[in-house]
This record gives sequence, C-alpha cells and structure tokens, in this order.
Amino acid sequence: MSLLTVGTVAFDDIKTPHGHAERAIGGAATYISLSAANFTHPVQLVSVIGNDFPQEVLDDMKSKGINLDGLQVIEDQKSFFWAGEYSEDLNSRETLSTELNVLENFDPILPESYKEAAYVMLGNLSPQVQSRVLDQLVSPRFVAMDTMNFWMDIAWDELMKVIPRVDALLINDEEARQMSGEHALARAAKKIMDMGPTYLVIKKGENGALLFHKDEQMFFAPALPLMQVTDPTGAGDTFAGGFMGYLARTEDLSYDNMKRAVIYGSAMASFCVEDFSIRKLTAISDGELTARVKQFVDLVHFEVSPNEVI
Amino acid sequence: MSLLTVGTVAFDDIKTPHGHAERAIGGAATYISLSAANFTHPVQLVSVIGNDFPQEVLDDMKSKGINLDGLQVIEDQKSFFWAGEYSEDLNSRETLSTELNVLENFDPILPESYKEAAYVMLGNLSPQVQSRVLDQLVSPRFVAMDTMNFWMDIAWDELMKVIPRVDALLINDEEARQMSGEHALARAAKKIMDMGPTYLVIKKGENGALLFHKDEQMFFAPALPLMQVTDPTGAGDTFAGGFMGYLARTEDLSYDNMKRAVIYGSAMASFCVEDFSIRKLTAISDGELTARVKQFVDLVHFEVSPNEVI
Repeated sequence: MSLLTVGTVAFDDIKTPHGHAERAIGGAATYISLSAANFTHPVQLVSVIGNDFPQEVLDDMKSKGINLDGLQVIEDQKSFFWAGEYSEDLNSRETLSTELNVLENFDPILPESYKEAAYVMLGNLSPQVQSRVLDQLVSPRFVAMDTMNFWMDIAWDELMKVIPRVDALLINDEEARQMSGEHALARAAKKIMDMGPTYLVIKKGENGALLFHKDEQMFFAPALPLMQVTDPTGAGDTFAGGFMGYLARTEDLSYDNMKRAVIYGSAMASFCVEDFSIRKLTAISDGELTARVKQFVDLVHFEVSPNEVI
Repeated sequence: MSLLTVGTVAFDDIKTPHGHAERAIGGAATYISLSAANFTHPVQLVSVIGNDFPQEVLDDMKSKGINLDGLQVIEDQKSFFWAGEYSEDLNSRETLSTELNVLENFDPILPESYKEAAYVMLGNLSPQVQSRVLDQLVSPRFVAMDTMNFWMDIAWDELMKVIPRVDALLINDEEARQMSGEHALARAAKKIMDMGPTYLVIKKGENGALLFHKDEQMFFAPALPLMQVTDPTGAGDTFAGGFMGYLARTEDLSYDNMKRAVIYGSAMASFCVEDFSIRKLTAISDGELTARVKQFVDLVHFEVSPNEVI
C-alpha cells in the first residue's frame, strides 16, 4: 500500500564529534521517505525545493520507489537549509543557522493521484501546512504526525486543531513534557491522548521509544546500544518512516502490529545514526534489516514462568 | 540460599519535589538486604551503626529474615548520615551533607557463620573494605559489587584490585563512562569487562538497565514508566538486592537466569521509588511483585515472524 508523506527536503550542515558534513542531504520528508521505501511502494512525497537540489539525489529517490509528483520546484529560489552542531555526548545540539528559503511560502498542493492515500505521515512542519494536506485527502485510513516545541510556542491553537485529526502522534520526550506540562511520561501520555490521538509514540533517542495506546496499553522498544553513533540527525524521521512504512506494507492496525512497527522504526533509526546524513539509509543491504530486527528481539527477550510466584 | 551483603546502614535527609523526609532510614546495605529478603533467607548483613539507630527498624529487618550478627554497633558514636536534594526532574541530586561518623574506621569483621557465603553483594563502600570482606570468604560462588565515581577518583588502584575478584559489576551509566573513558555504553562495557568481571550491569535510572556478558551478549531491561517517582534514593541498591536475591534463590547462574534477575531487580527498584526511604520496600504485599514482573513482560513483549524478510 502507498504511503504519503509531507515534510522538508533540504540541505544540512552537520558538525558532530566524529566529523563535519557540509551541504549534506537532509530534511524530514527525505529521511521519512527513504526509510519507508524499504517497506512499501510508492512513497508519495509532498515537499518543496529550490533550483539548487542535486538531480542525482532525486533520481536515486525515484529509483527507490519514491514518487516525486508532489515535489514542487521553485526555480528562482534556494532549498531549505539548516546548520547545527552536536554536543560531545550527542545528546543536545545547537542550531547555527536556519534559512527557510522555499519553505517561507510553501503551500502543499497534492497531485490528484495522491488524494486517495490511505497511510499518511505528516512530518514536522507548521500545523497549518499539516492541516492543508489533510484537507485534500479523501479518506485516509491511518494518519501519523510529528511536531516540535517551536509550533507549541507560536502556533498552539493551530496545533490543537490538527492533533485531533490524526491517529498517532510521534514526538520526543521533551516535546511530550512541554505539550502536557507533566514530567512523568506515563502521565504526559495520558494528557496528550486526551487531546485526540489513539496512539502516542514518545521517542527518547538513545533511550528508546514508548508506544502508548488510549486504553492504557504501553509498549517499550529500546534503542540498540551501538559502538558508535556518528550523526543523530534524522533518526526521529527515519523512525517515523520505518513505523509508517511497516504499517502501510502490512495493512494491519492491530496493537500487536503497531508494536512491531515501533521495532522496525527503531531498527531503521539505528542504521540512520551510523553515518552522516542519508548515507547509511540509502545503502541497507538485503537481509541487513532482518538481522538488525533479530538483534532487537535478542536484546529484550526473557522468559519468566507464569507460575513463578515470589 | 543465603546472601551476604556489605554496605552502609544510615540516616538520610532527602528533599524531592514531592516532599521532605528527615532522618529517614537509608544506606546501601539497608536497601540491598530489604530488597533481597523478598527472595531469599537469610540475608547476612555486614555493616556498622552508632548508638542512635532505632531498635524497631532492626527488629523489623530481623523479622524479614535479615541476620544482623555482622552489624557492628559502636556505642559512643553516631550512624552514617547523608543529606541531599533532588532536582525538579529527579535526574540529578546535590549532596548537602555527609557525616561519616561510625564509617570512618569501619573494619568489616565477618562472623564465623557468614564465611561460607556463596552469594555476595558488595555495596558501595571503599574498595579496601570490599576487598577485606572477600578476604574472609572461603569460596563464594557469585560475587557482585557496586562502586562510584568517588572511588575512581581517589582509590583507582585499590578499585582495580577488587574488580578482577568479582563476577559482576553493577554501576550506573555515568560511572561506566568515567571508568572506561568511553561515551558509547557498548564500547564502555567492552573495556570494563576487560578489567575482569564476567557480567556487567549498567543502570540507567528511569532509562532502564543493560546487562552485558563477556562473550558479547547484551540484554536490556526497561524501567517501568510510573505515574509518579517520589524518591529515587536507594533505587540502585534495591535493584542490586533484587538481582542478587533472585540469583541466590534460584541458584542458577545461566545467562537466561541472569536476565530474569535483571528484570526482578528492575521490578524491585520500581517499587522503591514510589515512596520515600524504605517505606514501600517494607510493604510489598503477596502477589504484588509477581504482578509487577508481569507488567515488565507486557512492556517489552512483541513477536516478529522468523520468516518475515523485508
């Protein structure tokens, strides 16, 4: 089944303790669609770029089953650009520069062929743009969205209009705390699900991800402890792409399958951080993903006897 | 099977965003033995107190199967005292006061009946004291130890003498990073196991715990997301008590059982933080622990088909 996604397609300048990537390919929709394309085709991409984006990257995306009919190209402008530097422990980053460029007046117009999309991942963009995408869809079956603190600060009302329209919200722990005003994530989750979504995924970076379901179910997927994290950029979007790609592939919205989707999303994110930019994401060999998922199985597997009473 | 433990038995003054506990019962050996007593008897405690420690607490410990023959009482001195205040998010704490008192000249003398101990948990104390305990044991079957940054700073050489003598080292993530000089925990674990121990548990507080085995096996146990953490004091020691108590009870040193021990330790720690001091730890009702472990099973359980190739 196809998956529609909206988000940035951009250039990143990334400094980490392990190196420096200049004018690297980035953007939420780039990571989401490259990740999802490992699971399902086509991935229908809605975004905007300038006249400066490399054609070979677009060709490569197309060859991986990503449909770019919804990618607007603004001929006299530049693509979105972000520059950032990570701390020594990679747990925080400082934004050095943000140039909106083509994003400033972005109006997401869906091609006719996109409007029947059943599975939708709204990448981090203004809630107004996210709503505009939903307005054009006929009857989506499962919609997930990302957002960030910035929109909570400047567009809370618009955010509260789009959140009740989605099935799943995927945010990180700091965002969940800001959104709910609660520190304990179990309590934050309860408040956020009262805002609308049936599922909530709280991403905790190197500390894994929690899946909450409205009727008080809770699932935890660890992050894989790696020998080296090279660049965390895009890990959250890669997670989202794997999560939604897996759901679109399996077309199974049961809670059990949602848990598997979280594991596949985590596995994809573990690849993403192993190299700068989209390098590793575009070079995952056959069987490598299956082997990685097996590592997650082994990482958390234990057995207690149901009769073991202490 | 019996479990021997050495560590502090003390008073704590604890401030958290949820309240203030003055002259509360604390100390590593207190938490370890009360936690372990849920699994195995007797727990043989080696420690020292002054003339100020409440008899009813000691009576209660005895009634729970904790043997106090190894608890020295120094009649003209005071018990160890620690005062600390936690940050708003409970993830860091400031020590406001430390009074060594009886601990200053503590020489751990083991009663004859303790010397045959098979399972041993060396709580956080100076590596010299830890070594002195090991010197008196005839042939322990499985020894675990805790330590802290303070000893790495001031007693590195002594620490490096005791670590090769233990089977398992239980430390937190910051301690593992300092001990190894590595940020990535998978890499830190490799270096630390090269120092001697066959098993390494890295405790990550609200982010769970990792178990590493020398031949590259790795297991992750989450922390249970709770609606409220009231007081994190003693959580690590409570984990250690549950871990070693479970091993002493089951007398099974296989990797699979070691994983279960980590889960039982995590379950005990999840109780500990629900109330100040040892309050919750001394009031775990029948079946409550089994129900809690079931929550851990549900939290991480997922199934992927072994034939599912993406």
